[in-house]
Amino acid sequence: MRLAELSERSGVSTATIKYYLREGLLSPGRRISATTADYDETHLRRLRLVRTLIQVGGVSVAAAREVLKHVDDDSLGRTIRLGAALWALPHVPEPDDADEDVAAARGEVDRLLEMLGWSTARELATLSPDHGSLVTAVASLIRLGYPWDAEMLAPYARLMHQVAVRDLDFVEAYPSESEKVEAAVAAAVLLEPIMRALHRLAQEEESVRRYGLS
Amino acid sequence: MRLAELSERSGVSTATIKYYLREGLLSPGRRISATTADYDETHLRRLRLVRTLIQVGGVSVAAAREVLKHVDDDSLGRTIRLGAALWALPHVPEPDDADEDVAAARGEVDRLLEMLGWSTARELATLSPDHGSLVTAVASLIRLGYPWDAEMLAPYARLMHQVAVRDLDFVEAYPSESEKVEAAVAAAVLLEPIMRALHRLAQEEESVRRYGLS
Repeated sequence: MRLAELSERSGVSTATIKYYLREGLLSPGRRISATTADYDETHLRRLRLVRTLIQVGGVSVAAAREVLKHVDDDSLGRTIRLGAALWALPHVPEPDDADEDVAAARGEVDRLLEMLGWSTARELATLSPDHGSLVTAVASLIRLGYPWDAEMLAPYARLMHQVAVRDLDFVEAYPSESEKVEAAVAAAVLLEPIMRALHRLAQEEESVRRYGLS
Repeated sequence: MRLAELSERSGVSTATIKYYLREGLLSPGRRISATTADYDETHLRRLRLVRTLIQVGGVSVAAAREVLKHVDDDSLGRTIRLGAALWALPHVPEPDDADEDVAAARGEVDRLLEMLGWSTARELATLSPDHGSLVTAVASLIRLGYPWDAEMLAPYARLMHQVAVRDLDFVEAYPSESEKVEAAVAAAVLLEPIMRALHRLAQEEESVRRYGLS
């Protein structure tokens, strides 16, 4: 298909598509004359993924390029490809261990992972930005005077594990390795707002069941 | 306590505390001379909440003022106070119903809420920004070619309801109404990064269990 059709089908303007091409977020089409190129379904799929990362996920162009580099690197195993792509997504700042609330939070997170038997999370603790995000957020709760510990976090972690099992079942349904990794990135970006919205709707629902609407 | 001690105990600089006082995010201390004022534990607690909203939750000063206005309005019932505070937190843009993917997503969300028996969420659908966020994210999945429907969303919604039951149990443990609403806001802001981090750690863990670390 030509650029105009790619724009029509993706809902992305031709100016934005040209920008993504220049920035290396989209591979060039097959050149068929000095001024026209031909694009296929893989371009369309990639363009939708780029738009999701940037417009819905709030990811910067530089971070999107980083995520896609890992998505496309088929020398890596699936766990590493997926992990590397997710790790390139934005995270909260690294926790500062000189802070006593951070030190307490890190202790509770370590104890939590041991309780759960999450051995990969423990091994990757110093590498994974998600581990750092978790420590930072727990430290903030402690600082506010809400003494969250491993026992309070554990049921949340177990529910999130049930969510992760569903995510991976969804991803596995796609045949090729690159479609699997693309589905995983889309799920990572879009399931978060879905879960956040469902979480808040559920809180309202539960609040009305307990206290009524007054 | 004096301003210096309030700063010391909250970890917020005196310049920032003065800024929050000018912006009306913190009520003035009890004046004890022309240049000094006295602050108490309620100031400290409020200051920590403001810092969490702004620094961890990424909420603007204007949005934080809006949230706190509802937190402090004891003419409202608990569900409304909590709802109004949560609704003032930032949300993704409202969905555009002229878009066919948005219309399809709205149909699936309606069907989901009916399946779940979430009658409050159905009644408040046109008011709640969370309902709009959910429709927008589901529409993005549909647009990417991932045909998420009510049946795929339902297990996620049921897991989030289990999370909401825990949240409200946590909030109920606080004695006064204003402490309950403060705890609910802190939980809303800080449980989201915690769940996001736990979700990603669980995905890595589950991925390694299924495919190994290669």
